[in-house]
Amino acid sequence: MDRERILLTPGPLTTTLRTKLAMLRDWGSWDGDFNVVTARVRKSLLKVIHGEDSHVVVPLQGSGTFSVEAAVATLVPRDGHVLVLDNGAYCKRAAKLTGLMGRECTVLAFDESQPVDAKALDAQLAADAGITHVVLVHCETGAGVLNPLQEVAQVCERRGKGLIVDAMSSFGALPIDAREVRFDALVAASGKCLEGVPGMGFVFLRKAIVEGCAGNSQSLAMDLHDQHVYMERTGQWRFTPPTHVVVALAEAIAQFEEEGGQPARLARYTGNYRTLIDGMSRLGFMPFLDPRVQAPIIVTFHAPGDARYDFKTFYGFAREHGFILYPGKLTQVETFRVGCIGAIGRHEIEQAVHAVELALQDMGIASGEPAI
Amino acid sequence: MDRERILLTPGPLTTTLRTKLAMLRDWGSWDGDFNVVTARVRKSLLKVIHGEDSHVVVPLQGSGTFSVEAAVATLVPRDGHVLVLDNGAYCKRAAKLTGLMGRECTVLAFDESQPVDAKALDAQLAADAGITHVVLVHCETGAGVLNPLQEVAQVCERRGKGLIVDAMSSFGALPIDAREVRFDALVAASGKCLEGVPGMGFVFLRKAIVEGCAGNSQSLAMDLHDQHVYMERTGQWRFTPPTHVVVALAEAIAQFEEEGGQPARLARYTGNYRTLIDGMSRLGFMPFLDPRVQAPIIVTFHAPGDARYDFKTFYGFAREHGFILYPGKLTQVETFRVGCIGAIGRHEIEQAVHAVELALQDMGIASGEPAI
Repeated sequence: MDRERILLTPGPLTTTLRTKLAMLRDWGSWDGDFNVVTARVRKSLLKVIHGEDSHVVVPLQGSGTFSVEAAVATLVPRDGHVLVLDNGAYCKRAAKLTGLMGRECTVLAFDESQPVDAKALDAQLAADAGITHVVLVHCETGAGVLNPLQEVAQVCERRGKGLIVDAMSSFGALPIDAREVRFDALVAASGKCLEGVPGMGFVFLRKAIVEGCAGNSQSLAMDLHDQHVYMERTGQWRFTPPTHVVVALAEAIAQFEEEGGQPARLARYTGNYRTLIDGMSRLGFMPFLDPRVQAPIIVTFHAPGDARYDFKTFYGFAREHGFILYPGKLTQVETFRVGCIGAIGRHEIEQAVHAVELALQDMGIASGEPAI
Repeated sequence: MDRERILLTPGPLTTTLRTKLAMLRDWGSWDGDFNVVTARVRKSLLKVIHGEDSHVVVPLQGSGTFSVEAAVATLVPRDGHVLVLDNGAYCKRAAKLTGLMGRECTVLAFDESQPVDAKALDAQLAADAGITHVVLVHCETGAGVLNPLQEVAQVCERRGKGLIVDAMSSFGALPIDAREVRFDALVAASGKCLEGVPGMGFVFLRKAIVEGCAGNSQSLAMDLHDQHVYMERTGQWRFTPPTHVVVALAEAIAQFEEEGGQPARLARYTGNYRTLIDGMSRLGFMPFLDPRVQAPIIVTFHAPGDARYDFKTFYGFAREHGFILYPGKLTQVETFRVGCIGAIGRHEIEQAVHAVELALQDMGIASGEPAI
């Protein structure tokens, strides 16, 4: 039977029917009605971080990675020097795109099971005065670690460095207050904790730095300064917007606000996370991370030690029981991931844990206990 | 009353309810079911140009312009030299993005009311042996001119130059046969004549040149070679795909095939075009282009000569009567544009002409006759 499954993936994720129903209409991208939607989305996004006074927000077509690349391309001058704080796959991706576009890039590596360390950042900035910008991934979904945004931001501010934050999987769920944390750019996307559909990202830019960004980008499509100036002047996107994705995001944001905004979303996801950890522990599974560094966004579990386990089979059985899991993204340890985000609550998570239990039974595996 | 209006715009355009209904489900981007959709879309796209033997097709997140930029970035080596055949706004955009990314770029300018000239191209290539690639916009929607793809392709082949075709607004409607026309890259998008929703583009790459494109792109997001290699290996997109846009495109393509493919679509659009020209002529409007160079995709009309005319008011009244028009994009002449494409037939066009007539009446204008 081809019924719809629940996504336990870190985006695309499960959205509400109300969000999807918003896509049942076509919009002219030049039309005033659509400009109103774009303006409303931008205003709401700024409210989420209390950034009305300090920041602007620039939406961009494409996946979240497109927006990360655009943020680096737009903020970092061609002779700039970027330091990437690396504790996982998405950090490595940020370093890769930075180097590719010809910006000097230094990687400060940390263990993927640990948050990045603001003291090590401070020492690195002291040692290399040429660094102009720092890239931080707020919640590194590779393992699920929450990185110390506030501490990193303070070091960057004290040292006079620009800070670019990839907040893809934290934005909307974890508190980010632009009045208290200083960053030059913060990047997120439609299909994550705001529970929209994927297809666009958005970047908050500190007002004070916007003007100085003119001419930095070597990419027309990924020039956030150009996109910003055009949008301020016309209310429109420079190039064809993903109209249906935009209206779905507007509808998702309306529900986000009705639910109670970021605090309510964090409370729901935290409930999901606890239900997941409790249930999976009962089945013998062991989370990869120390709970003190774990964000309630996505949880990496060690694969079961049983020789009959392999992820594809496990995935297939869990899928038959109605739930879509996510593969691990660690290089050294066999793991899989389960997202706590999306339009789901603890009842869905309870069912998910049950589906995992049934999947283990299907494979003839008695326990999720890892080999280590 | 907030009923849905018919879009007479060159994308986003009016799509069928069936296409939009396909978006009422969430898909895991890692899931086998979604990979099947991606594979089916790619296979169908190749069939449209009979390119199964000669080409691969690489989908890309973002608007069509993102795919044009990606095609140039991926195909043209960093020391390459691009010649853009320019007879309109989208040609100028291609030249701009080429120069921005640091590739040498020469523009061969033509009048925006005329097709580009293959003989002039030949002379330019003879005069400048350093040119490595030519960029042609197949149907330049700035004015609506159809450019001579076959002739340009022959010159490029004879001179041994790479050809990149922006077929954004022609693909699916006008015949393009990869067995007869030689091009290295051809770019189009979901929200045009295939009548999907906007949010992704795709680029046909000639198989023989794909391998040699490795390492050309300075952009991670816009590296079609990397996207291609990853997709061939995994069946997945490198970065989060716009899942709902992809499934809507799959559904739109199914309807395209049921309708009878490109010949049937061209027949419907040609019918729309004739109905539009006949009706608008009755109202006194004059098309900007000579019918011999006009593609049946989008028609530029001279603005009425009446002093009471201004586009915003005209647009507003036509909108109240249920139709969304499109502004002109010419710099010298005051015009507006009407699209013939989308999930509409001649009955909708008849009503559109009637809406234009009523809009003129609302403005107290007796005729669409231009001042010239």
